[in-house]
Amino acid sequence: MRIARFSIDGNVAFGVVEGEPSDPDGPVLDIVKGHPFAEFERSGRKVPLSQVRLLPPVLPSKVVAIGRNYAEHAAELGHEVPGVPVTFFKPSTAVSGPGDPIPYPSFSQEVHHEAELAVVIGRMCREVPRDRAHEVILGYTCANDVTARDVQRAEDQWARAKGFDGSCPLGPWVETELDPSDLGIMCTVNGEQRQLGRTGEMVRSVADLVVHITQAMTLLPGDVILTGTPAGVGPLTVGDEVAVTIEGIGTLTNKVIKRD
Amino acid sequence: MRIARFSIDGNVAFGVVEGEPSDPDGPVLDIVKGHPFAEFERSGRKVPLSQVRLLPPVLPSKVVAIGRNYAEHAAELGHEVPGVPVTFFKPSTAVSGPGDPIPYPSFSQEVHHEAELAVVIGRMCREVPRDRAHEVILGYTCANDVTARDVQRAEDQWARAKGFDGSCPLGPWVETELDPSDLGIMCTVNGEQRQLGRTGEMVRSVADLVVHITQAMTLLPGDVILTGTPAGVGPLTVGDEVAVTIEGIGTLTNKVIKRD
Repeated sequence: MRIARFSIDGNVAFGVVEGEPSDPDGPVLDIVKGHPFAEFERSGRKVPLSQVRLLPPVLPSKVVAIGRNYAEHAAELGHEVPGVPVTFFKPSTAVSGPGDPIPYPSFSQEVHHEAELAVVIGRMCREVPRDRAHEVILGYTCANDVTARDVQRAEDQWARAKGFDGSCPLGPWVETELDPSDLGIMCTVNGEQRQLGRTGEMVRSVADLVVHITQAMTLLPGDVILTGTPAGVGPLTVGDEVAVTIEGIGTLTNKVIKRD
Repeated sequence: MRIARFSIDGNVAFGVVEGEPSDPDGPVLDIVKGHPFAEFERSGRKVPLSQVRLLPPVLPSKVVAIGRNYAEHAAELGHEVPGVPVTFFKPSTAVSGPGDPIPYPSFSQEVHHEAELAVVIGRMCREVPRDRAHEVILGYTCANDVTARDVQRAEDQWARAKGFDGSCPLGPWVETELDPSDLGIMCTVNGEQRQLGRTGEMVRSVADLVVHITQAMTLLPGDVILTGTPAGVGPLTVGDEVAVTIEGIGTLTNKVIKRD
């Protein structure tokens, strides 16, 4: 099931996506009664996807991200795969949705795309055992871990390099029925392929990351884990359209704009 | 003015602290009508501070923290003062209040106290010019940037080492009328002095930090900046009572407990 968050008539709602972009009238949203993190049902009231504005599919209290989780990407930046996962935060103010602009930050001259599988947490949890990790996951979406690479090199910790406004596009929706163990993941810029990999190449699996993170901290419903990016990261410039596509989920597209 | 957040009769309220601990009946709270981040006034309805439970004085969407901002502390951990401030996040799930326990995390054997001046942001802001930094600050409180030092050494980024549950006690209240430029700051463990410094020793001032952080990201009302810790950090063990005292604000006390 694909659950989108969207605005309609000035209100925010969740809806279940039905149909495919290739359908004659395109996909529709069956508006949800209740909340995806609790009991909910489809209302039967439907609106065409083309007539709503999609929003970030969740509003995370925090995004916990993992670095160097694909060996080939670690190598392209000159790093080894670390003995323990590199774990950092992106703040809620960095989150944006499908179609939202990525304002080019004023303090960087080298902003990179990083296509990533995003895990959406469905329930409050801590110290999750490995064999129960699946119970705390609501589903998956696409993410772009937009990174000011020059700032990342210059600063010991990555709060500014990876936490600036608009540096965490998420979407287009949450897919709740998906095996994340070996999905194709791709990033294109202006239609040209830049990154291509499979989640099966991840050094640590989704379940491993849930265990590692919740050993230290409580995750709340809507919190997001970014699972690392495959090789092929590279620069974005103002005007670029960057798209992250993950097999079984869909495509997250954002345009880089000049920051006002 | 000192604004405390507290629970009374099952409700959460803000109150202005009047009087001193040395007063015969101790300080009282004048309950606030409205919200400290907007228009508010004192109601005249007063309760003794001793009869309420103080809560974290704010609920930050994020805590942005600065490392190695006191030269002597950087040196004690074997570091130079960095050319650009070391900037990292502590998540909202790390925040606790005065009197709350610090549960000793299961993944560390070396948890340290770090007494810090905390800046409470009063209004949404980004790209704040230096001469207007004071306009976005509601006030100041005490913080303990509790750190799993062994994990910090082992992991490249500090999300787990400094972001675990209970690693960010804040309080006891927000002091809104205070010049932060040269305040005494002290940390005691079981009454014995461990850290002693003055905010005047900070490498970057509060205004510098507001500029540096908001160059990258929007700060929201209630967000908190931790300004670094003076020399003297050291280990905590289960049963310890750790207290951070800042001149002109007050004392934040927390007890280290075994994690359940």
